[in-house]
Amino acid sequence: MYKATIFVTLKESVLDPQGVAVKGTLHTMGYTEVSDVRIGKRLEVSLEAANQEEAEVAVTAMCQKLFSNPVIENFRFDLEEV
Amino acid sequence: MYKATIFVTLKESVLDPQGVAVKGTLHTMGYTEVSDVRIGKRLEVSLEAANQEEAEVAVTAMCQKLFSNPVIENFRFDLEEV
Repeated sequence: MYKATIFVTLKESVLDPQGVAVKGTLHTMGYTEVSDVRIGKRLEVSLEAANQEEAEVAVTAMCQKLFSNPVIENFRFDLEEV
Repeated sequence: MYKATIFVTLKESVLDPQGVAVKGTLHTMGYTEVSDVRIGKRLEVSLEAANQEEAEVAVTAMCQKLFSNPVIENFRFDLEEV
């Protein structure tokens, strides 16, 4: 059994409207020292695989096909045997 | 300037309906080897602070008040001077 911890983030060049909204809320709450907020996803996926490489191939495909939009997002993941 | 990378995750005991839905989609796509999916948030916050400790106090407060629901979620963050 393997566990992948996946991070999906917006590419640097992409505007983050959700981040802008959260920054505004933080300023309203008095945290005016905040200059930027970027919001992404963190996923944990547990999966069976014969070996590390097979798990890596499967998780990469899941990231490309489902978890991230390659046009505006990047992904990376850590993989551990559990 | 400091940058906090914040991870907000559901507590282990809490059901993750979004994760269950994504697992179902992965199975439909053919990834039946996936046994569990847990979904959380990853935030990057850039902020001014006089020192590391001041930044830590501010980010902790933001996590407690805005980024996480203490009843069902945990948070942790990494803090670096940039």
